[in-house]
Amino acid sequence: MAIDPQALLERLIACPSVTPQEAGALDLLERELSASGFAVTRLRFEGDNSYPVDNLFATRGKTGRRLLFAGHTDVVPPGDRAHWTSDPFIPRVAEGRLYGRGAADMKSGIAAFIAACSALPQDAGIIQLAITNDEEADAINGTDKLVGWMVENGHGFDFAIVGEPSSTEIVGDSIKIGRRGSFSGKLTVTGTQGHVAYPHKANNPLPVLAAMATALSSERLDAGTEHFPASNLEITTIDVGNPVSNVIPMSGTLRFNIRYNDLWTPETLGDWVRERIGAVAANQTQVLFEVSGVPSRAFLSPLGADIETLSAVIAARTGKAPDYSTGGGTSDARFIAQYGPVVECGLVGPSMHKADEHIALEDLHSLTAIYTDFMRAFFAGGAK
Amino acid sequence: MAIDPQALLERLIACPSVTPQEAGALDLLERELSASGFAVTRLRFEGDNSYPVDNLFATRGKTGRRLLFAGHTDVVPPGDRAHWTSDPFIPRVAEGRLYGRGAADMKSGIAAFIAACSALPQDAGIIQLAITNDEEADAINGTDKLVGWMVENGHGFDFAIVGEPSSTEIVGDSIKIGRRGSFSGKLTVTGTQGHVAYPHKANNPLPVLAAMATALSSERLDAGTEHFPASNLEITTIDVGNPVSNVIPMSGTLRFNIRYNDLWTPETLGDWVRERIGAVAANQTQVLFEVSGVPSRAFLSPLGADIETLSAVIAARTGKAPDYSTGGGTSDARFIAQYGPVVECGLVGPSMHKADEHIALEDLHSLTAIYTDFMRAFFAGGAK
Ligand SMILES: [Zn+2]
Ligand SMILES: [Zn+2]
Repeated sequence: MAIDPQALLERLIACPSVTPQEAGALDLLERELSASGFAVTRLRFEGDNSYPVDNLFATRGKTGRRLLFAGHTDVVPPGDRAHWTSDPFIPRVAEGRLYGRGAADMKSGIAAFIAACSALPQDAGIIQLAITNDEEADAINGTDKLVGWMVENGHGFDFAIVGEPSSTEIVGDSIKIGRRGSFSGKLTVTGTQGHVAYPHKANNPLPVLAAMATALSSERLDAGTEHFPASNLEITTIDVGNPVSNVIPMSGTLRFNIRYNDLWTPETLGDWVRERIGAVAANQTQVLFEVSGVPSRAFLSPLGADIETLSAVIAARTGKAPDYSTGGGTSDARFIAQYGPVVECGLVGPSMHKADEHIALEDLHSLTAIYTDFMRAFFAGGAK
Repeated sequence: MAIDPQALLERLIACPSVTPQEAGALDLLERELSASGFAVTRLRFEGDNSYPVDNLFATRGKTGRRLLFAGHTDVVPPGDRAHWTSDPFIPRVAEGRLYGRGAADMKSGIAAFIAACSALPQDAGIIQLAITNDEEADAINGTDKLVGWMVENGHGFDFAIVGEPSSTEIVGDSIKIGRRGSFSGKLTVTGTQGHVAYPHKANNPLPVLAAMATALSSERLDAGTEHFPASNLEITTIDVGNPVSNVIPMSGTLRFNIRYNDLWTPETLGDWVRERIGAVAANQTQVLFEVSGVPSRAFLSPLGADIETLSAVIAARTGKAPDYSTGGGTSDARFIAQYGPVVECGLVGPSMHKADEHIALEDLHSLTAIYTDFMRAFFAGGAK
């Protein structure tokens, strides 16, 4: 029985699934997917200094190529409700648009994909869904662990689509084939405190700290790549906090952030930082370099036949092949990219996270058709 | 009638003249000096963003060379009285020592000088005293204005002695012929705030600030002079206070302090700083340089015959000529040095500003004799 994407999306929006509360959204998906012939596994991950998160894995088909669809049911909080025309968790249709929190980001992608599956024969190929309820916040007990669990349990994939809103004006005008990574670090330089009148009894760490700031910011990391701008380091703060003009301080700290392309990994960036600061004379100070938090990896999917197929399918529906973008912040696609090729392909993004978040209903049906067309072509193709 | 320096010092210590309260100390000096034939003028200066201060000027003699003795009756607070063996404002003699707040710094110098004056004939020469009650704190309405008033009113001098504790182990082992100056400044570099993911829309001020830190700290100001060590700049703090790792900050500040010798003035130092930071490419940031507070001028007294006389008098009493020192922080001698030669010659300093501040009574009498001997020789000499 064919599923109507609009009806499913409206029911999803009615679940107020602000991270990390699934609020019935995953329960609804479990019922719908089971009814469409999927074997559903619910997975609750916890620990690693984050809250417990509900996740869902679903699979259908025994033979053929393996497609993964990934997404999230959680939404960001609605913010000040006075800025919304109507209740953000009561779906509202007006002038061809559907309004509600999560309409664009990204309950629409999930609804369109499940509707597309319902139009395909049960034995079309191996279709898998990995849905988390924590993409908008920590993302520690979500997609990262979910895809790891999948691969460990024999549920690998040949190609993955993330249903994030990737389009800018009309559906399919842009798909994301990669994302920059983000790496934050902290330098602490410690010398010997003393009185400014007796500098020979002290060792001021600040000239060393300043030289390291220059070493980190004076040489660019690279000149960019085909699909990415140049990687870039910014010093975000330098702090000593010495209120007294006659005291040489004991230590100072510097923090920086690097937005980087597919030429780098957190490991090679750490080596680069160590090399740059290691070239500065430490003048008998102690220099401590620490990575702040967990860096987001950059990724770029290989531009293989499956991406070409997706592009051709979109061009056939919209009249124009999509741009291949790597812009924006980070997304869960970075976790999936560790295991195989992944693209982000979904609805129009600009209203996401804002009041009166919405999509065009025409776009929702268009996306459903694109997913359907793509799956037919994907499963008809041979292994790459 | 000869004045006993110990008796006068004990009465001065009994006045709890913590800055800026004279607590009877200047009243006592006015009575003693008047009784010794001095014409006494009390001067209260106020304004310039500081508290009002009581000062005293005294002069005796109509003809001959002009000697100025300068000092202060104010003392630093006693601190935790539990660290004192007895009340800091009740003089106590034990084992040849006299204990009390101000015993070394510098009621002893005043008592010794007034005692020395009482041993000289009234017509020995022109003897002048400039005593303030604010050396230990702001020093804005004290010696600076007092000496300015003197010179404006025809009370110039040929030579000046400041009675600060200049000795290190025994009285007369060191006199101070100069002091380094102190100059504090602040640099503010302002760029354009933005998001680290969009650096082309921002302008990070921190690489410029770091380059200026290097420019200020990488080249020494001079190699030192005959009586002074090399001038030295220390960066005392760098502060941005940006708590967010994905934001390029709008501005950052740097503070520095320079301890400098007789090759420099605050004016030439300001020019040096402007030249150093002006050589750094500002990269379209705004750079603001401000002098912090009022710089202390460096001074070095010319090594003329009067200093040689003082040295010879000390050597005759102690068996050893004094070291000519320029060490330590700043003192009121810097104000006097603007008008004529000045040395600091007083008791043993190490206990000053501490609990159980004290002097050796033998040193007090020795200093009285040195002052007496010096004045005899000074007034016997011709104009230089
Ligand atoms: Zn999303
Ligand atoms: Zn003093």
